[in-house]
Amino acid sequence: MPQLRVALAQLNVTVGDIAGNADKIVAWTRNAVEQGAHVVAFPELGLTGYPVEDLALRASFVDASQSRIHDLAQRLADEGLGDIVVVVGYLDRASGTAMGVDRLGRPKGSPTNSAAVIHQGRVVTSAVKHHLPNYGVFDEFRHFVPGNTLQVIRIHGIDVALVICEDLWQDGGPAAVTHEAGAGLLLVINSSPYEANKDDLRGDLVRRRAREAGCALAYVNLVGGQDELVFDGDSLVADADGKVFARAPQFEQGSMIVDLDLPAPSGTPEGTYEGIEIVHTVLHEDPVEAYDAMEPVIAPQLSDEAEMYAAIVTGLRDYVQKNGFKSVLLGLSGGIDSSLVAAIACDAIGAEHVFGISNPSIYSSDHSKDDAAELAARTGLNYRVVPIQPMVQPFLDTLGLTGLAEENLQARVRAVVWMGLSNADGHLVLACGNKSELSVGYSTIYGDAVGGYAPLKDLPKTLVWRLAKWRNADAKEKGQHPPIPENAIAKPPSAELRPGQQDTDSLPPYDLLDDMLDDYVEQDRGSAELVAAGFDPELVTKVIQLVDRAEYKRRQYPPGPKLTHKAFGRDRRLPITNAWREDARKAAEH
Amino acid sequence: MPQLRVALAQLNVTVGDIAGNADKIVAWTRNAVEQGAHVVAFPELGLTGYPVEDLALRASFVDASQSRIHDLAQRLADEGLGDIVVVVGYLDRASGTAMGVDRLGRPKGSPTNSAAVIHQGRVVTSAVKHHLPNYGVFDEFRHFVPGNTLQVIRIHGIDVALVICEDLWQDGGPAAVTHEAGAGLLLVINSSPYEANKDDLRGDLVRRRAREAGCALAYVNLVGGQDELVFDGDSLVADADGKVFARAPQFEQGSMIVDLDLPAPSGTPEGTYEGIEIVHTVLHEDPVEAYDAMEPVIAPQLSDEAEMYAAIVTGLRDYVQKNGFKSVLLGLSGGIDSSLVAAIACDAIGAEHVFGISNPSIYSSDHSKDDAAELAARTGLNYRVVPIQPMVQPFLDTLGLTGLAEENLQARVRAVVWMGLSNADGHLVLACGNKSELSVGYSTIYGDAVGGYAPLKDLPKTLVWRLAKWRNADAKEKGQHPPIPENAIAKPPSAELRPGQQDTDSLPPYDLLDDMLDDYVEQDRGSAELVAAGFDPELVTKVIQLVDRAEYKRRQYPPGPKLTHKAFGRDRRLPITNAWREDARKAAEH
Repeated sequence: MPQLRVALAQLNVTVGDIAGNADKIVAWTRNAVEQGAHVVAFPELGLTGYPVEDLALRASFVDASQSRIHDLAQRLADEGLGDIVVVVGYLDRASGTAMGVDRLGRPKGSPTNSAAVIHQGRVVTSAVKHHLPNYGVFDEFRHFVPGNTLQVIRIHGIDVALVICEDLWQDGGPAAVTHEAGAGLLLVINSSPYEANKDDLRGDLVRRRAREAGCALAYVNLVGGQDELVFDGDSLVADADGKVFARAPQFEQGSMIVDLDLPAPSGTPEGTYEGIEIVHTVLHEDPVEAYDAMEPVIAPQLSDEAEMYAAIVTGLRDYVQKNGFKSVLLGLSGGIDSSLVAAIACDAIGAEHVFGISNPSIYSSDHSKDDAAELAARTGLNYRVVPIQPMVQPFLDTLGLTGLAEENLQARVRAVVWMGLSNADGHLVLACGNKSELSVGYSTIYGDAVGGYAPLKDLPKTLVWRLAKWRNADAKEKGQHPPIPENAIAKPPSAELRPGQQDTDSLPPYDLLDDMLDDYVEQDRGSAELVAAGFDPELVTKVIQLVDRAEYKRRQYPPGPKLTHKAFGRDRRLPITNAWREDARKAAEH
Repeated sequence: MPQLRVALAQLNVTVGDIAGNADKIVAWTRNAVEQGAHVVAFPELGLTGYPVEDLALRASFVDASQSRIHDLAQRLADEGLGDIVVVVGYLDRASGTAMGVDRLGRPKGSPTNSAAVIHQGRVVTSAVKHHLPNYGVFDEFRHFVPGNTLQVIRIHGIDVALVICEDLWQDGGPAAVTHEAGAGLLLVINSSPYEANKDDLRGDLVRRRAREAGCALAYVNLVGGQDELVFDGDSLVADADGKVFARAPQFEQGSMIVDLDLPAPSGTPEGTYEGIEIVHTVLHEDPVEAYDAMEPVIAPQLSDEAEMYAAIVTGLRDYVQKNGFKSVLLGLSGGIDSSLVAAIACDAIGAEHVFGISNPSIYSSDHSKDDAAELAARTGLNYRVVPIQPMVQPFLDTLGLTGLAEENLQARVRAVVWMGLSNADGHLVLACGNKSELSVGYSTIYGDAVGGYAPLKDLPKTLVWRLAKWRNADAKEKGQHPPIPENAIAKPPSAELRPGQQDTDSLPPYDLLDDMLDDYVEQDRGSAELVAAGFDPELVTKVIQLVDRAEYKRRQYPPGPKLTHKAFGRDRRLPITNAWREDARKAAEH
């Protein structure tokens, strides 16, 4: 059977940095050529970065993508890289006939999410994404118009069918036509964001679609953080029986080289199936000379904790770097949340770039101050203690605040300190709140909620403890000193904004709360279902009211890495003014 | 010709408050009956409020809407209101066949944006919205599945075709089939958000569609504020020649009664046109007895300034009330922005519920303090002076901040004061920034940007001055005292965060800046186009960089009323990490 050496280049690109991304594509094409690859595939929208969001509606941006893809083709040839077939995602425009969706409106300028096939200095053809996801974090129906062809490219005597990301996830569409097209390889370019356990789903999907297509399947994915999204790579190759025989590591930029033995095409089947026209492009009729195949790579799979931790580290590192920061600053309370964020920040950008500020108040316990100092000593981050009483007292003297107003005042004075140091020294401030707190609004707006990025935003409190324990255990396994003080993990959580305060004064225990939040937020269950599941009706009412009423606070919270199916942020669109909570109350009272 | 008295009830409902909205619908149905109407129409999603956003994906919410619409029908009959035909929007679920969009994915539970026809205690039929807008502020493709019928209801011998909002705006679809259906009246229920000058567009559209349908057209719209959206009512009726002969006032809840002479149907045309099936429901074959028609109402049209001012007042009033606040608090700098916001707030909720805090610093000018005091005296709001130096100094002593960090510190200390008073007394804090500042990031995050609502968020600085002058002139015309000190309007703008500071130290003059922002933000033009339009290339580079880099600040800004085609907030989705600005720079340098 004809052979083909394919490079799947899972790159870390930046939205809008077309020039920088093009440089990376050239560099990794050279790497693929050096490794003897015949084809190199880059991720979906690899040239522009993903997601481009409303930049797709800006004509000058689409123009730039269109002209730079041709510049890229020319440059590759000029640099002696014209022989290899390069597949890369870019932003294009639909031309010609309407695609059958006019009844539902089309975005301005008809942008398309396309894949260019580059060879010998030219864009020889391009595929257009059909399935435009418009749920969760995706808004692609707003930004793109869909395609209606399946592109099949004959490369060294093998027919390679080309589809884009969601085209693989949805039944029907071009992936389903691959079988009719008699392709020898289904190549899928992706920018598929990380979610916990999505790698398992993705593996199952690739296996199933390979069997359905009756041919091998090569899947390349983006790597790295882009605002709230983290991409984990995890590029895969399956054979025609659906067996995954090559897998790239998660969260690491690089190129996986795979040798494939693929059937020669028995013809060039044409026609239109389910509205999708098969379009052929022939680059080379003849197979390459036989060569010795390399052993495929199978990267070891990460544990659930290692995977989540790596996702958070990746998200933070890229947010810092891609936004041009050199350092981060966070408040160290001695509690578990800020301790875990500090450990993550040190892992992401190095302890020398992490600035931890302890801001004890008159209510701070000795153990908090000790735990913060110990964390600093263990991690080696830059540590400074700034007691807040001298700054809190003038506000109390002037305004006479008490109760909740006094509690929030302390949190806000800390925030003014952090933002002042950030303005003075250029640090990115990190918010340390977790998903459980954010769900119920247990934070001070413009206080502990300030910052540019919130690493734990999508991590429930029970998982905060789990990842902290895992990080310490992992260090021990590797013969390193565990970064997080054991006492920070073991002690009961407290905001320490009044004497003797504990989180359980205001909230149910976190294991119970996280269970309820999983039902109400992740699973979208209603109050009646929560009561039926055995939760106390009064508590159901209280928690639902807290969640619904906290929408404004959540909107003001910094972005953080999305780790779950339902993260707060761009994949949940809820009204701020939402009287539905009242109905939840009534339903629970029944 | 048969007669029909139609009530168009432009209500102010609240998202999620199904019980409260149902009470309003009953009350206004009673009003319509008392006025002798045969049909009363309520806005799109009038039962649930609009927009429901991701509440549409929550099964318990859809269940509630479905069961409450039947409860409403029963209740109307029980209260002796069963004879009138009631048309009201609600959230339903698609049943039966797929609607032909499966290739693009369907929202969970297949929710529909529907219009119930209620008569004699029953929902006799319902129409489903076809065109699901998914641009600007709309995400309906994410939330609903489309319909594929045109519902025609025979009421007192007249065939009334029923469609929903966007179905009127897009070519094709059910409005286009109205002509084939031979309907005597096209009834359109809407929740169409306000934009400056949209009333003119809407009037033109209604005229054109009436002519296309060859029958009279009645258009009822929502009124009131819901988070960032403001609905202006402006319900209309046109005859079959496209002449608008009845128009309800903007921004006022109420019911417009219109008497129509309409042709009797010549048959019951059936069939499917462009995939849309005509479905008939007969309530009464015979016309009502002839009666004396009333004169139609034509509400006077507002000036551009009066309309924008009313939109802002409406948005603020409803945000305050629907979120359960009793009062607002804002910082009074003596400048034009906070002066205009104060005047708006007094108009919205009464001066006795408005708390203005003057927070002079060592850099505040005497005229600023005077202007703030004079504004307070003119409007009668609650005024308090809290100098900030005693609170600023301890931060300076502790942290040694200078330059920009010191400037921001003053703004943040003010914010801590406002938020402390808000926590103590329950005021909603208003942010006073305008769209020009927000566009270029000319504000202090966690400083002047704090608050729950930002009335001027979508108003460029040049319009801030225009509305302030208009408000004063309008007062004079009405024999009232103008609320805004003339000096606040006349003096050059300054943040007063350092000695002698003026906005023009950092920014171009506002008339120039607003021109550039209109091109870059509103019109989505690129840097090359701005340069071609005659703007200075260096200034183009600078302004585009400022705009692109301010995305994070804009995301953290409170919501405000959308007044334009492109408001910052939910109708612009831009990446925070956006290296495209670099390309803008290069393009401008060419």
